[in-house]
Amino acid sequence: MTDTSAPPLSEQGKTDPVFLTDLADAVDEGDIRWLSRTLKRMHPADAADALEALPYDTFEEAVELLGGELPPEILIELRDSYREGAVEMLPDTAVAQALDELDSDDATTILEDLEEDRRERILEDLAPVDRAGLERSLAFEEETAGRLMQTEFVAVPEFWTVGQTIDHARNLGTDLPEVFYEIYVIDPGYRLKGIVSLASLLRQPRDTGLEDIMHEPTTELNTSTDQEDVAFQFQKYSLASAPVTDTAGRLVGMITVDDMVDVMHSEHSEDLLALSNVSSADASDTVFETVRARLPWLAINLFTAFIASAIISVFEGAIEEVVALAILMPVVAALGGNAGSQGLAVAVRAIASRQLDGASARRAILKEFMAAAFNGLLIGAGVGLIALFWFADTGLALVIAIAMFGTFLWAGLSGILVPLGLKRLGADPAVASSVFVLTLTDVMAFFSFLGLATIVLL
Amino acid sequence: MTDTSAPPLSEQGKTDPVFLTDLADAVDEGDIRWLSRTLKRMHPADAADALEALPYDTFEEAVELLGGELPPEILIELRDSYREGAVEMLPDTAVAQALDELDSDDATTILEDLEEDRRERILEDLAPVDRAGLERSLAFEEETAGRLMQTEFVAVPEFWTVGQTIDHARNLGTDLPEVFYEIYVIDPGYRLKGIVSLASLLRQPRDTGLEDIMHEPTTELNTSTDQEDVAFQFQKYSLASAPVTDTAGRLVGMITVDDMVDVMHSEHSEDLLALSNVSSADASDTVFETVRARLPWLAINLFTAFIASAIISVFEGAIEEVVALAILMPVVAALGGNAGSQGLAVAVRAIASRQLDGASARRAILKEFMAAAFNGLLIGAGVGLIALFWFADTGLALVIAIAMFGTFLWAGLSGILVPLGLKRLGADPAVASSVFVLTLTDVMAFFSFLGLATIVLL
Repeated sequence: MTDTSAPPLSEQGKTDPVFLTDLADAVDEGDIRWLSRTLKRMHPADAADALEALPYDTFEEAVELLGGELPPEILIELRDSYREGAVEMLPDTAVAQALDELDSDDATTILEDLEEDRRERILEDLAPVDRAGLERSLAFEEETAGRLMQTEFVAVPEFWTVGQTIDHARNLGTDLPEVFYEIYVIDPGYRLKGIVSLASLLRQPRDTGLEDIMHEPTTELNTSTDQEDVAFQFQKYSLASAPVTDTAGRLVGMITVDDMVDVMHSEHSEDLLALSNVSSADASDTVFETVRARLPWLAINLFTAFIASAIISVFEGAIEEVVALAILMPVVAALGGNAGSQGLAVAVRAIASRQLDGASARRAILKEFMAAAFNGLLIGAGVGLIALFWFADTGLALVIAIAMFGTFLWAGLSGILVPLGLKRLGADPAVASSVFVLTLTDVMAFFSFLGLATIVLL
Repeated sequence: MTDTSAPPLSEQGKTDPVFLTDLADAVDEGDIRWLSRTLKRMHPADAADALEALPYDTFEEAVELLGGELPPEILIELRDSYREGAVEMLPDTAVAQALDELDSDDATTILEDLEEDRRERILEDLAPVDRAGLERSLAFEEETAGRLMQTEFVAVPEFWTVGQTIDHARNLGTDLPEVFYEIYVIDPGYRLKGIVSLASLLRQPRDTGLEDIMHEPTTELNTSTDQEDVAFQFQKYSLASAPVTDTAGRLVGMITVDDMVDVMHSEHSEDLLALSNVSSADASDTVFETVRARLPWLAINLFTAFIASAIISVFEGAIEEVVALAILMPVVAALGGNAGSQGLAVAVRAIASRQLDGASARRAILKEFMAAAFNGLLIGAGVGLIALFWFADTGLALVIAIAMFGTFLWAGLSGILVPLGLKRLGADPAVASSVFVLTLTDVMAFFSFLGLATIVLL
């Protein structure tokens, strides 16, 4: 059926440089025939990688050259920014054709890229039934099961046998979805009664009733289920696909695991970036986009940093008298900040994996407190000893050791309480947590160290 | 086939507290029959969640009570630490039985939990063929496709038809793997010739030859392929399963997407934690484990923090003369550190998604440099202005603005060059990067600010 003697790809999916040069040359020469044939022979994901590896101008030229000859399967594999760029350049007819050929979830992704009036214009060109389906999909909120699902799936009545089901599939042939792993068993009202995996369909005699081999749905996904919940259930129940119902319990779509893998990947990336105060990042970001994703957080940090300065300025007199305080105070802040970030990362990860609910949250807070106390004791002692050797001042060593210990306790508690608090307020615990935690820790570090020093040393 | 009228679970898979009390009561009363029946009626993942929600003592009691009655499917769904605890408490016969019932990849996981001599003892109890298979699996290195694959899969000769294949599956019946999504087509030497998805098998007439509907394998996984590569290919090619060959090209196993989802999840978690200097974390960690995962990094940070102190001490005289320097120097360090962390998070994420190879790395370095210059200019100006208003000293304001700008450039470059360098050295770019970047940034911040101040202000 397929001939995938693709051009050579070097290891790990990296595109071969020689092939890239050939590709760029073909674009320069306007060799549409070679381009189209070559790209179609490749796996769409590899073809998309190759196109993305071209300089952006060449990529645009290639899309313009290919027009309707650019296979929709490649279009949908392109990274967001490239896909948006390509869709913008393709003629309306090519976009309409892509919408027609793609599964509904992919078609919705393309529609999202279009500007309002162009979308209207292109939708009008589609067959009324396709148009209605896509408009329904677009009506669901972003990041819900309704938006992610495809409306192509296989559903059969509960009184059918294995044999009838297989005959039905053979009759439909290429009208069946390209990829599916299970068949949904429904009643006349389209309510989901059970699921039959293709593997269990295959191992049963023709006269077995579907009712006897179907199992109850493991998940209860409806069109408004949040994509994070969907991904969580896919992971928990090791699913390859799952049915989606509407609010009245009628089967309306199917979600496959590849889409969930993408969701998991982007949710994970968001958490990792948010913890480091970056709001988004993509390899194709321009300098301007990079700045925009970071500057707001730096601006906030600019003000919180001066809060710490204000604390220090209160103890100006102490520093003038004992300059060692100025030398040592960044140590307390840096180590406290490190301890706070550690606790914060653990808490954010645990919240994302649903491990910090109810009683576990209380246990986790206690555990963070005890770990902070233990680490604070050891690191405090270490800092104190080094300070003692350096400045030969027992009072100073004692002050920094105690301040370090106190800062650790504070950092440990804020590392878990800040994200839990943000979550309770309905905010994303990964976002903004680290600014809060680091500011709280800095303030505590400078206040406790300089304050104690003022009392003990002056 | 299955009856999954499970006990009530509240939303999002959280275990119902009333049901938890029932469960704990049954354990107290030693009601093995109720326990076993109830757990078997639940989805194994839900049963595992319920057991993990019990106090650990009660969990241990439950495992002891159930013994061989604890279904292996639940055992394998337990979190690592719980599973290890349970395996330790189960009698040898129960473990042997679990090894026998589970797919080979899950059986290998259980074997890994066992101590050397107990493992030997239990393996001896197994049928020689099972034993040989498991020993072969264990011989593959950890985190490779060989370790992750299951040796249960469906393979048929290339000259078979769709009809023959379906008849073969019906004959095998329950001897087929529980879960599979595709059939592998092999030659007499067990070399993989192609793949037929169950969906395409289903839609073809009985007399269609497999050769006509099979497609070439998209991936080339062999037993020594690293699990990160495997996961990358699953995501890239939207796979539900993939074949694994040995070094001679013979088909030896199959990997399914649910295992890859777990790998992706743990790789993501590792990156997130490593960036915050935590070597591992689990909700069931003891305080001791928590301390052990963090203290080494804090100890390293203890020394790097004193490097920054040493820089400050060089400029002791300047601070004694202009105490505002002590007040302002944490601002330069905090903002520079933030800028460095931002770049670092973006770089680590891009490296993990294979977006920083060759030419893209050079582009990314240039982009980071320009973004850092832009942000440094703006934040430097902001810091300078605030300092000017506060201390009414143009020289000081100018010094801190320039130092801030220089620190941003330095932070931006080290945020991308440190992880790229670690990667080139074969180390994990997420681990240790942040200690390096923050130390480099601190040193630069204090050195440039205090150094400039000494030249300009004194």
